[in-house]
Amino acid sequence: MTDALATALLRPASVALVGASDDPAKTNSRPLRYLRSAGFAGRVYPVNPRRETVGGERCWPSLAELPEVPDHVYVMTGADQAIETVGECAKLGVPVATVLASGFGEEGEEGREREARLRAAAGRTRILGPSSLGVINPRTGLLLTANAAFAETDLAPGRVFVASHSGSVIGALVSRGKERGISFAGLVSTGGEADLSLGEICLSTVDDDGIGSYALFMESLQHSDQLARFARAAAERGKPVVVYKLGRSAQGAQLSVSHTGAMAGSDEEADAFFRAAAISRVDNLEALVEAPALLERVAPGKGAADFRVGVLTTTGGGAALIADQLGLRGVHVRAPSASLRERIQDLGAPITDSIVMDLTLAGAKHEIVSGTLDALQRSGEYDLVVMVVGSSARFHPELAVRAVIERADGPTPLAAFAVPDAPRALAALGEAGVPAFRTPESIVEAISAAASRPAVANVVGAPQVPPDSGGRVLDELGSYRLLEKAGIAAPPALECVTAEVTEGRVPEGVRYPVAVKVLSAEIAHKTDVGGVVLDVSGDDELAAAARKIAERVGPAADRLLVTEMARPGTDALIGYRVSPEVGPLVMVAAGGVLAELYRDSSLRLAPVDLATAHEMIGEVKGLAPIVGYRGSEGDAGALARAIVALSTLAEAEPSVLEAEINPLRVHGPGEGATALDALVRVTGHN
Amino acid sequence: MTDALATALLRPASVALVGASDDPAKTNSRPLRYLRSAGFAGRVYPVNPRRETVGGERCWPSLAELPEVPDHVYVMTGADQAIETVGECAKLGVPVATVLASGFGEEGEEGREREARLRAAAGRTRILGPSSLGVINPRTGLLLTANAAFAETDLAPGRVFVASHSGSVIGALVSRGKERGISFAGLVSTGGEADLSLGEICLSTVDDDGIGSYALFMESLQHSDQLARFARAAAERGKPVVVYKLGRSAQGAQLSVSHTGAMAGSDEEADAFFRAAAISRVDNLEALVEAPALLERVAPGKGAADFRVGVLTTTGGGAALIADQLGLRGVHVRAPSASLRERIQDLGAPITDSIVMDLTLAGAKHEIVSGTLDALQRSGEYDLVVMVVGSSARFHPELAVRAVIERADGPTPLAAFAVPDAPRALAALGEAGVPAFRTPESIVEAISAAASRPAVANVVGAPQVPPDSGGRVLDELGSYRLLEKAGIAAPPALECVTAEVTEGRVPEGVRYPVAVKVLSAEIAHKTDVGGVVLDVSGDDELAAAARKIAERVGPAADRLLVTEMARPGTDALIGYRVSPEVGPLVMVAAGGVLAELYRDSSLRLAPVDLATAHEMIGEVKGLAPIVGYRGSEGDAGALARAIVALSTLAEAEPSVLEAEINPLRVHGPGEGATALDALVRVTGHN
Repeated sequence: MTDALATALLRPASVALVGASDDPAKTNSRPLRYLRSAGFAGRVYPVNPRRETVGGERCWPSLAELPEVPDHVYVMTGADQAIETVGECAKLGVPVATVLASGFGEEGEEGREREARLRAAAGRTRILGPSSLGVINPRTGLLLTANAAFAETDLAPGRVFVASHSGSVIGALVSRGKERGISFAGLVSTGGEADLSLGEICLSTVDDDGIGSYALFMESLQHSDQLARFARAAAERGKPVVVYKLGRSAQGAQLSVSHTGAMAGSDEEADAFFRAAAISRVDNLEALVEAPALLERVAPGKGAADFRVGVLTTTGGGAALIADQLGLRGVHVRAPSASLRERIQDLGAPITDSIVMDLTLAGAKHEIVSGTLDALQRSGEYDLVVMVVGSSARFHPELAVRAVIERADGPTPLAAFAVPDAPRALAALGEAGVPAFRTPESIVEAISAAASRPAVANVVGAPQVPPDSGGRVLDELGSYRLLEKAGIAAPPALECVTAEVTEGRVPEGVRYPVAVKVLSAEIAHKTDVGGVVLDVSGDDELAAAARKIAERVGPAADRLLVTEMARPGTDALIGYRVSPEVGPLVMVAAGGVLAELYRDSSLRLAPVDLATAHEMIGEVKGLAPIVGYRGSEGDAGALARAIVALSTLAEAEPSVLEAEINPLRVHGPGEGATALDALVRVTGHN
Repeated sequence: MTDALATALLRPASVALVGASDDPAKTNSRPLRYLRSAGFAGRVYPVNPRRETVGGERCWPSLAELPEVPDHVYVMTGADQAIETVGECAKLGVPVATVLASGFGEEGEEGREREARLRAAAGRTRILGPSSLGVINPRTGLLLTANAAFAETDLAPGRVFVASHSGSVIGALVSRGKERGISFAGLVSTGGEADLSLGEICLSTVDDDGIGSYALFMESLQHSDQLARFARAAAERGKPVVVYKLGRSAQGAQLSVSHTGAMAGSDEEADAFFRAAAISRVDNLEALVEAPALLERVAPGKGAADFRVGVLTTTGGGAALIADQLGLRGVHVRAPSASLRERIQDLGAPITDSIVMDLTLAGAKHEIVSGTLDALQRSGEYDLVVMVVGSSARFHPELAVRAVIERADGPTPLAAFAVPDAPRALAALGEAGVPAFRTPESIVEAISAAASRPAVANVVGAPQVPPDSGGRVLDELGSYRLLEKAGIAAPPALECVTAEVTEGRVPEGVRYPVAVKVLSAEIAHKTDVGGVVLDVSGDDELAAAARKIAERVGPAADRLLVTEMARPGTDALIGYRVSPEVGPLVMVAAGGVLAELYRDSSLRLAPVDLATAHEMIGEVKGLAPIVGYRGSEGDAGALARAIVALSTLAEAEPSVLEAEINPLRVHGPGEGATALDALVRVTGHN
């Protein structure tokens, strides 16, 4: 680990504790006590102008008077004083200052102004926080934290690195991990992210060989560019990243906003980002500490449908718990082949032809369990073998999991789930580095994450400059022309002056039947205002239609668009937008009111390739009539090509903020697709 | 508790252990050891013709030679021997025999035949099992079980009664409960249910004052009539019932079948049954042991939307975990009123106007927590107050939960969630009877169940005689006539002879435009075979339509149905069927292919009342255009009345096995609804 930031954060040679308290009841007294108790080998300088000593140690009146410039300063004063101290850090050239105080960005206008002053004061000093409970590195005894959860200072070093927006959740993860024999390579409370973000911090550690995987707790998705850089680097190094993110519901998103002051982006956008970033999202809190070990052992890139799980158990009921829930996530538990089953039966294992291999009482015999695991691991029939242990895990923990621990480095990854409460068995597995799980929900979520994790992180993050929130809307014809440049075919369309058509001066080259529509960037919902007449079959009808539109819409209807009536097909909706949180996104949904009601759509970070576009189409249930359903089939290839074309707008037409084709009429196989309406918003003003 | 069955099951004065083994390594040796270790006060008779003594106690050669007829015999021999022993029990007049052996109904034809012999042998002796791991009553030391999980015989008595299809899962529940201070009033492994079912067993205990709630583990829904009787009795006594049921996925259902031999019914049917039975279904295994205490304290019948949850915490991050997930389930965390907030602030609690009340460091002060809880409980503003405890739950467990335990019997129910691993705090809460939770997922599921539990169980269970699986299909006109008797209006329709119409002899009284359809009970999908012509506007067209249908469909099209073309509207689908598992069901869905793709429907046990029918309509997203969406609105009342009418078929027309109106065209407000097609299947044969 050579990164200077990571060194100052996690391996400082010296730390200063500004505002350290001598009163053991005070939060500010904790870091010194924890550091000493954990045996931190670096130099520690309490700083407090009102004390000669703190915790029995010499106390310094100011940072400037220390015998050296510390690598890392923990600022534990109030908010305004903290700004001054950070200013001193900047002057002295301190690499990193961690700020405990709150009262910055999350607290209205005054807080934002205070945060701006903090940033300005920092100069080249990097800030962790504000509202940071600090940094822990169990490998060096660095318990630089005011978190009461670290009163237990006997932390074993492990391989999971934790970064969390919430400091208090770190305590939950450490204690829940400890119970399970799961330890950590480092934990950082990122707080308000006035400067250092979770992504940048993790990126700085990515070449640390002591770190095998990452567990992130996020209140909202922010600084996605840095998170994207980290995700790519982690994927390249084969280090899995697991995230638990708040904001699934509006109620949760509201709390996130009030807690960190960040604007919560749409949770669906975050999902699209995590997927592209190969970051595995979990919804069971304990999966955040339990899943990383499993992901570290299972190669990514297989896909849930092809992932082969074998389940060996001593309790049919317990194994069924897992198989049932895996089925809901599209992950298949597979029976062994007939020849493998015979081989296992020859070992004395009484397995039947069920998809779950139940050893029943033979599970108490070490040589049978070990031999069966060995046969399963060598068979090449599985991507993962799960051992579900019954009551023996509680009463004979060493025996019950001995075979699993012994076979942990076999040719196929293993995982274990204990059906009863079995703390000793789980701790033994955890300490041996075997992925082990306390609840059926957690192991199911972890297996599902392992099965579906992509091999590469293909993600950029939000553009540096967030898009102009207003922008300018193009009219339908302008939208078609812009989309044509990106490679999306527009329908044959003629622009006319309404006043001419109403008088019978119809344009040349009209091929009836046609649709007549008002042409105006001002009118978003043409049908609602009576600005559309369909199935117009001759010059007279066209003039009549123009008069009808002029009458209903009024002066805004000074121009008309005449387009050929579309051939039959199934309607889809495709959209593109640039999100300030995650950058360009592309979306496909079924057309019509029902699809909107069902929120039936597929969202990805843009651009996407043709294979991904087909995957997206497959995810939208309402598009089944295009893919093939009950005798109906459409030109899915044309739809996929349109999605790909739209998704490349960020490069092809960077001025586009948003584009929507609704509907895109998808015709029969080989017959293409036609945009029946389009709306494009670009940068700039009308 | 006076029920004779419950007495023999749970409070036998004497038990016999047939097939008891002297070898402590054998499963059959366990019950005697466990009973002695737990201090069971009744008489225990080991029976084994090949032993003089077992476990140092006198062993008897046969049941007939015992000095008394035991109340309960545990038969631990092989399957064939077990049938003989059960026969002896019958002869002697033993009330209950529990059978450990497997190899009965779950194992093919031979097993089913063996199960029939077992039943025949039993006479008036009731059978628990086969494949039963036995019965446990911690209140009397009755550890009549071969379950290795009960090697820990020091079971505290509690208030939750467990009945489980799976014996091994019982071990998981006991050990997980023990860790949490949650104890049990009894546990029964029901196994294959050759005779006694889970429902009948629970019903026999329902007046036991020591039982406060029920936790059921089901592999499939069977014997629903008995379960329904139990559910009604439990609801009447205010005793909540929680269930975890396998079979959410096809993969899980497959395992259930192989394990118990029962045919798995549709999981959606089971959901409809549980809802009507006021049985709360959970999907987190630990919620099965954690939720009952909460449900016991929260009055049912409020409804999720109106349920008011207050969240008090010492850690904002931990509380957000809960609030976020509750939001997804439509349960609202509510901020205190301004006056209540002021009152709490006056106590010294630094709460803000967030929906979550965060005490931060003030949470360490007992008087503040206690005073705040008291104020919240007395305010009348909440149906439930949740205390989310941070790291203090781990380090100062007694202090952290003292206020919660003291206030447990206050005027508003309390529940607690510990964010870190905090076994002592949870055990203290559990032992004090306070609903306490180890994971955010479990507490969220329990709160959601408490909020939505109906006050009454309105459920009958499957009919005694399962319906005839074939039956006879009525043609469209016959279907309409039958439905009319149930009160569902059919469209004006004329039956004609095809050969007459093709020759121009059209019936009198036709009001054009009409739809012409082939009329035949043999043809289920009329459109697919070209048997429908729409928008026929005159006699000539009608004759032409008849010829077209005759040509396309052939001789089966000997009769036609002529109906008026329907007025415009939104299409729905309503259906009725009698399930062998749960009895009559009624369903509503949106019409069309998309609704089918989305599996967007609402299912209830039939009959339903008008309020429930409206509730069902509200649950189907695709019916929003009828309820009111984007300016569209339909006659929701007419749709609701049609659902109610269809749901009463079980009484009105008991011969009906299945009925479907697809589509039911729902017209504008006040304009009614028209069946555009119908299919009814009745008992009997063509």
